[in-house]
Amino acid sequence: MNAIAVERGGERPVVVDTARPTPAPGEALVRTLRVGVDGTDQEVIAGGHGGFPADADHLILGHEAVGVVEDAGDTRFSPGDVVVPTVRRPPGESNEYFDRGEPDMAPSGEYYERGIEGAHGFMSEYFTSPGEYLVSLPRELADVGFLVEPLSVAEKAIELAAAARSSFDWAPESALVLGNGSLGLLTLALLRDRHDYERLYCLGRRDRPDPTIDIIEELGATYVDSRETPVEAVADAHEPMDLVYEATGYAKHAFATVEALAPNGVGALLGVPEPWEFEIDGGRLHREMVLENKALVGSVNSNVRHFEAAVEALGTLPEWFCDALVTGVYGLGDFESAFVDDDTTIKTAVQFSAYEER
Amino acid sequence: MNAIAVERGGERPVVVDTARPTPAPGEALVRTLRVGVDGTDQEVIAGGHGGFPADADHLILGHEAVGVVEDAGDTRFSPGDVVVPTVRRPPGESNEYFDRGEPDMAPSGEYYERGIEGAHGFMSEYFTSPGEYLVSLPRELADVGFLVEPLSVAEKAIELAAAARSSFDWAPESALVLGNGSLGLLTLALLRDRHDYERLYCLGRRDRPDPTIDIIEELGATYVDSRETPVEAVADAHEPMDLVYEATGYAKHAFATVEALAPNGVGALLGVPEPWEFEIDGGRLHREMVLENKALVGSVNSNVRHFEAAVEALGTLPEWFCDALVTGVYGLGDFESAFVDDDTTIKTAVQFSAYEER
Repeated sequence: MNAIAVERGGERPVVVDTARPTPAPGEALVRTLRVGVDGTDQEVIAGGHGGFPADADHLILGHEAVGVVEDAGDTRFSPGDVVVPTVRRPPGESNEYFDRGEPDMAPSGEYYERGIEGAHGFMSEYFTSPGEYLVSLPRELADVGFLVEPLSVAEKAIELAAAARSSFDWAPESALVLGNGSLGLLTLALLRDRHDYERLYCLGRRDRPDPTIDIIEELGATYVDSRETPVEAVADAHEPMDLVYEATGYAKHAFATVEALAPNGVGALLGVPEPWEFEIDGGRLHREMVLENKALVGSVNSNVRHFEAAVEALGTLPEWFCDALVTGVYGLGDFESAFVDDDTTIKTAVQFSAYEER
Repeated sequence: MNAIAVERGGERPVVVDTARPTPAPGEALVRTLRVGVDGTDQEVIAGGHGGFPADADHLILGHEAVGVVEDAGDTRFSPGDVVVPTVRRPPGESNEYFDRGEPDMAPSGEYYERGIEGAHGFMSEYFTSPGEYLVSLPRELADVGFLVEPLSVAEKAIELAAAARSSFDWAPESALVLGNGSLGLLTLALLRDRHDYERLYCLGRRDRPDPTIDIIEELGATYVDSRETPVEAVADAHEPMDLVYEATGYAKHAFATVEALAPNGVGALLGVPEPWEFEIDGGRLHREMVLENKALVGSVNSNVRHFEAAVEALGTLPEWFCDALVTGVYGLGDFESAFVDDDTTIKTAVQFSAYEER
């Protein structure tokens, strides 16, 4: 079967021919419908993040998949069920994190990530997965099911942030999303429709006209141009934020977040930057965090509970939003287009097969 | 009556003569037993923190008090009850934070702090307080009741830190307390006896023999000399920490805390530094927070619930610990000694009257 992979020493994704996998006991065979592309894929291709499976000369890409159960094996699924796979798998033996359903909290070395770190991803015509790592999706959401994984990552981060404020009465109203990429925009919609934030802001560095600014404004949020209003100026220029959601990987934003927060606010950090030394007013940031009870929480990955929440959330996203967000779905013959990252691209996917109702 | 105050332009505490306060409706008149001295008092005296009451030429010091109800007025107390006052008061009108019992979460401008910011403290022969801001203390704890306020501050920070980890299964075993001052040592005892941490570390910069190192080791904790093992080296030299509790106000510690944490760990920040610019590897810290789900929470002050927890905790502290911690209790005639801060001083208090069972 065909798969999209990056080879050792390679700098771009290529189609490779690989054996169709055979499901082990407890596993289902899934026919792949679509697999989304995101910034992590770009980092994996560039070699900045993740790693090849041991003894493999290539890594099959893709961690944002949706598919149809072809052979349910002894899982709880039936052929024809639409499913979304989670990303982390035990590295050989299971461990306590997987055993209790929290692989997202496993430390480095205690997990593989399919398509990212140590295990092949989902960008192939078929993939197998233990049933416990597959989440059901209503059939009518099959076309946009590749958005479940990024939504689940946002759900987890928002959950962690809210937990960090759960020992007191916290009723957040304002949120600033840093980054107008697909994750930022998905988060904006999630905060509006699922988490009832009243006033939303999204920071980017784009000139109008721009399709992401159009989406931001169509969602009723305010676009903040970081070239005019840097993160540390947002509180004065607009308002102090109850939640700041960092989805850029730009390390200075993580620290400027403290200054954008309202008293008792929380910053959720999701970006994965490279080492970068710079100067901060550490005394002032430390003082502000203490005297105003501010918090910062890092968040990575997501577990089945977050995937289930994301499935629910996906069902409530407006149709216009998904239409505007997904700027391209490409077949195998044109798969390179799915990896193009320019100002007209927001979210893309590779389609391996079409969904047809049985 | 006599009070200990700092005058505008003054650089050291002095005894002033002031009118004995008259309780308003809803208030009790309390005869002061003892009032503790801490680092915040030193900052207030030095002018680095807090502020004078409007129109007052002096600020009566003291926010760690224990006293005996002299006149209960229409409060729920009876004369002879031993009580500890909380610190924050509404600045004139009440507001939502006080109304819901969370003055510790009020932002700047929405509170006074007795003895610190905008309102006289408790270092006088008598003070008044609304009954709702007084917490009952068992009589047998009267002598050490001035430790309730700092314990309550630690309780709040530990509560906030644990809340930040409440969305997943977190079973902390190791904790590092930064700072071997009285708050650090109280926290160490609290973490051991009330929060069941198994392995405790306390970081300072003192040579042996030293009374704080003796207490650390008597508590079964490990002393970490920051001159040999800086915060960022603790994880390698000892172990990564589930909780780091910063009680130094040394801003570089707040950022190095991220490196001392175990995956999924949390740093509680309590110190109040001055502005200070320095370089950090912001990219690495940001990356670590995200990929290892780490959190930092700032925490200030405490509310009645934390005071009540602190009263409970105080009852469980070993007697030897309080004896070793409290290095001096001084009467009005020798009050300057309570403000001396040298290597043989750990915790001091000023005694205004002796507790006698009725």
